[in-house]
Amino acid sequence: MMKRTHTCNALRKNDVGKSVTLIGWVDTLRDHGGIQFVDLRDRTGLTQVVFDPQHAALKEDLHHLRHESVIEISGTVSARGEAETNSKLPTGEIEVSAESLIIHNTSETPPFPLDDEKTDKVNEDLRLHYRYLDLRRPSMYNNLFVRSKASKATRDFLDEQEFLEIETPCLFKSTPEGAREFLVPSRLNPGKFYALAQSPQQYKQMLMVAGVERYYQLARCFRDEDLRADRQPEFTQIDLEMSFIDREDMYELIEGLLKRIWKDCLNVDIPTPFPRMSFEDAMNQYGVDKPDTRFDLKIEDFSDCFKKSGFKVFQGTIASGGVVKAFNAKGLSDATQGEMRELENTAKSLGAKGLAFIRITEEGEWKSPILKFFSEEEKAELQERLNIENGDLVFFGAAEWDRTCAILGRIRLEAAQLLKKRGRLSIPDDQYNFLWVIEFPLMLFDEEEGRYMATHHPFTSPVPEDIELLDSDPKAVRGQHYDCVLNGMEIGGGSIRIHQPALQKKVFEDILKIPVDIVEERFGYMLKSFKYGAPPHGGIALGLDRIVSILTNRPYIRDVIAFPKTQRGQDLMNDAPSTATPAQLRALHIEVNDLED
Amino acid sequence: MMKRTHTCNALRKNDVGKSVTLIGWVDTLRDHGGIQFVDLRDRTGLTQVVFDPQHAALKEDLHHLRHESVIEISGTVSARGEAETNSKLPTGEIEVSAESLIIHNTSETPPFPLDDEKTDKVNEDLRLHYRYLDLRRPSMYNNLFVRSKASKATRDFLDEQEFLEIETPCLFKSTPEGAREFLVPSRLNPGKFYALAQSPQQYKQMLMVAGVERYYQLARCFRDEDLRADRQPEFTQIDLEMSFIDREDMYELIEGLLKRIWKDCLNVDIPTPFPRMSFEDAMNQYGVDKPDTRFDLKIEDFSDCFKKSGFKVFQGTIASGGVVKAFNAKGLSDATQGEMRELENTAKSLGAKGLAFIRITEEGEWKSPILKFFSEEEKAELQERLNIENGDLVFFGAAEWDRTCAILGRIRLEAAQLLKKRGRLSIPDDQYNFLWVIEFPLMLFDEEEGRYMATHHPFTSPVPEDIELLDSDPKAVRGQHYDCVLNGMEIGGGSIRIHQPALQKKVFEDILKIPVDIVEERFGYMLKSFKYGAPPHGGIALGLDRIVSILTNRPYIRDVIAFPKTQRGQDLMNDAPSTATPAQLRALHIEVNDLED
Repeated sequence: MMKRTHTCNALRKNDVGKSVTLIGWVDTLRDHGGIQFVDLRDRTGLTQVVFDPQHAALKEDLHHLRHESVIEISGTVSARGEAETNSKLPTGEIEVSAESLIIHNTSETPPFPLDDEKTDKVNEDLRLHYRYLDLRRPSMYNNLFVRSKASKATRDFLDEQEFLEIETPCLFKSTPEGAREFLVPSRLNPGKFYALAQSPQQYKQMLMVAGVERYYQLARCFRDEDLRADRQPEFTQIDLEMSFIDREDMYELIEGLLKRIWKDCLNVDIPTPFPRMSFEDAMNQYGVDKPDTRFDLKIEDFSDCFKKSGFKVFQGTIASGGVVKAFNAKGLSDATQGEMRELENTAKSLGAKGLAFIRITEEGEWKSPILKFFSEEEKAELQERLNIENGDLVFFGAAEWDRTCAILGRIRLEAAQLLKKRGRLSIPDDQYNFLWVIEFPLMLFDEEEGRYMATHHPFTSPVPEDIELLDSDPKAVRGQHYDCVLNGMEIGGGSIRIHQPALQKKVFEDILKIPVDIVEERFGYMLKSFKYGAPPHGGIALGLDRIVSILTNRPYIRDVIAFPKTQRGQDLMNDAPSTATPAQLRALHIEVNDLED
Repeated sequence: MMKRTHTCNALRKNDVGKSVTLIGWVDTLRDHGGIQFVDLRDRTGLTQVVFDPQHAALKEDLHHLRHESVIEISGTVSARGEAETNSKLPTGEIEVSAESLIIHNTSETPPFPLDDEKTDKVNEDLRLHYRYLDLRRPSMYNNLFVRSKASKATRDFLDEQEFLEIETPCLFKSTPEGAREFLVPSRLNPGKFYALAQSPQQYKQMLMVAGVERYYQLARCFRDEDLRADRQPEFTQIDLEMSFIDREDMYELIEGLLKRIWKDCLNVDIPTPFPRMSFEDAMNQYGVDKPDTRFDLKIEDFSDCFKKSGFKVFQGTIASGGVVKAFNAKGLSDATQGEMRELENTAKSLGAKGLAFIRITEEGEWKSPILKFFSEEEKAELQERLNIENGDLVFFGAAEWDRTCAILGRIRLEAAQLLKKRGRLSIPDDQYNFLWVIEFPLMLFDEEEGRYMATHHPFTSPVPEDIELLDSDPKAVRGQHYDCVLNGMEIGGGSIRIHQPALQKKVFEDILKIPVDIVEERFGYMLKSFKYGAPPHGGIALGLDRIVSILTNRPYIRDVIAFPKTQRGQDLMNDAPSTATPAQLRALHIEVNDLED
């Protein structure tokens, strides 16, 4: 059995003259006047190997060499001439003159080129089908490498903070609220089902009741979602829970954790503490609860300004309880008709009737169909508060508060894209704007259901000074929830939990109006556990997939998951899911419905 | 919000005079002449707190104190008098005189005492129902603590060895061979099912094809087994795979890993390298493929001796291809009638017709119903090879080779138990006999199926020098499989895999006789992947639950799993599994069969 003496990224000029054995894949294969040059690749890098066919030991095998074959060579390290030096490769000053060759496995011609740039453009389904080949690309390997590093950094940090890694079950109880669950029929309990845990939430709270004090887990979680662009049926969260802490402790802990991850993975020092923003400010200024603060374009409220406006659309909206907001897409006055139509479509898809705007030409002329309705005072206030200059483009929203925020929040992001395209807004790849968003409302009234729903989940503790509002004005109650936001993406969220059994019961039954028998069935054991000395506790879950995709600067989490599923939940490599045998279904006491239904 | 200044295991004599704040659970509560003494407990230990009810700030709350309530106290550290010192507690030289008390949560009277010794005897179902209370016991917390430490040691070691931690999917393709799988209906692919991965076997081999070279994962695995005494539907393995290695590399790696785990968890240095034993020797000498070598009682083969014996049972067995074996249960001649009956029942349950034996009295008299058939030469050979002395008890087995081994292997273990009970065999708790069992047959002929079945799995590579026997004498082919055995328990197993597509196809189709279409459906993608330059590779999986149960000296793996299921697969705490709603089932296109079937 072979033993390599070096990896393919190890040899340097001072190794010249050494006898070495390398093993790896044939990355490239070139013939220069009868001499064969191979770039031999392993996970660490490339080394050039030279085969002189005059060498008796090589003659026979040499013409079997193919791209992506696995070979082992022994030979001597030699220096390359100055002209032959490859300054792009760490091993570029040397090459290995092969004296023996073993072909461990040959390769058929791969279905697509394994080249970092070209392969990104290959049909993704094809790449998923041959995932084991796609992963051979150095950039894909690097995604896995960084993910492993981020996991290790997380574990090292939390271990130093005296957290215990504890595994909680995946086979959990079905709690059919919230996201859709995967069900697992139980053979030993016919007619009954497990649900694959959507998160370890309930178990980790039980660990706090058990006195564990500090728990963490890189937890596999499962959600049977209609797969949106960037969701996966199974994903991983950095899940943790602590007793005897408050929100400040949690901010400090997570800032330390993320600092460590960024340091270990990218050698980047991220500044802490992170800025904090209330939910209300986030919505008002950025139109979203996960603001991207890497650029400005802040939204301003003009409801006071237009309260008595001659523009009846604005005036009427405000009179009926709505708001008027605007932001200045700085320097975007050259937006094309097509781009404006796109923006308007976005606004309409969010429930706007249209998208009012003012275009300010390079010459300073204001152009807008609605301008004629505005008073000079209104224009002056817009000018001043939005800092309007030549070449700007101002967008308006006028509707209920939350809808107005949402519309302008999305238009703001799309406007930023248009500015980036024009080179007027540039965001460095390595800019990381972390942010805590806090003071969320504890619950929101759901018009469809006709009752309050927990904004995050029903275990979140109210802010203490708001508890007395629970009966009188539930929607004013703020929760002790916190979201961690990075560059406009939510990378985690958590809360201080309710630990008092009476308060938890009140939230379930009196506020959220969950029927008593359902509360008992789904959460009865938690309420019971709280009666035996539950400590004050809180926790958080951070999306590991998302964090790694940001660390590796990849757009999709499937790029940082070794074997992702497609949007239809399929593993194209091995063709899962597949049909079950009749015997399997019989044993589980289930049958498949008529699929024509 | 409170901040504790110290944990409950931190204060010592040199802290006397300090003002401190502690938080924890009321472990014990005693009244000595109006003064209340509380042992305050957190996960680290206990500190005695003294409440003087004269203290105005305490008066009101003090009579609300209950066992297991969560309280926070501030006070001053004082020295205990010599008579009051508790030498069993690290904090036994001090106590804290409370000046303030906050009760964070009260507790109802727990359903069982939270006491390490007594609670072990409480009905296990009750303890599982209140798992969050059972876990409060220091010994149970310690199990979780050691598990966390063992996981960390594993990750640290494998990280140093340049392994990448890579997560593979739980939602896998159904491959209905081997152990029974859990099925998961796919809503997005009606009529199709995922299987919960029984192990990452196929995915990790794909990672090797992908060029990852060194992969590990603490992998959650799922098996829908009829739960035997010590199995769980989900369990965790230390799962790893490497390219470009042979068996020796794997032995060295795993010995290093286990050495590190034992060092980090127990501060015990285990000697390496581990002894190795062939499958054949293990069966011949210990009657089992996972020998407990902490005691001797070795089995010897007497087939040659009895080939022409006057004892027709032995002679006939040998003549028809069977074997005669025996071992000396040293010093067990005082086995009772009842014990002998038990042993005979064991033998019969394994297919023996009876259990022949010779009892050697303390006076040296040999007693046995079969003695009269033995020649003097036969007795002399027994005497010599089994080192028979006064007070011994010799057991015989006579049947086919594998059955004889299995019977005497079990009798050997039961005899050892009887010797332990009598104090004639003592095995220290901290004796760790590691062992590699190697050279397993690659496959075994399955009489029922009428074909060869892979001894471990169909991906195991044959020993190179045996490959030529694949067609002519398959049962003689040894596999490159290795089992890691500790104290008679298999703690892990693995193999060097087949990486040549033609050989893998041959094993599937020609040797194991799996129909071509089934091979294509289940393993087609693996065979295909091997055609694109699969490297030589191998791996192993170690049972983390079992390892931790040995480290913590607990008999069952459920003791080292935070939330285990019962033997019927139920979580008694939260009542999983449970019924699904009709809407859930409709969405999944399945229905539950008539359960009367």
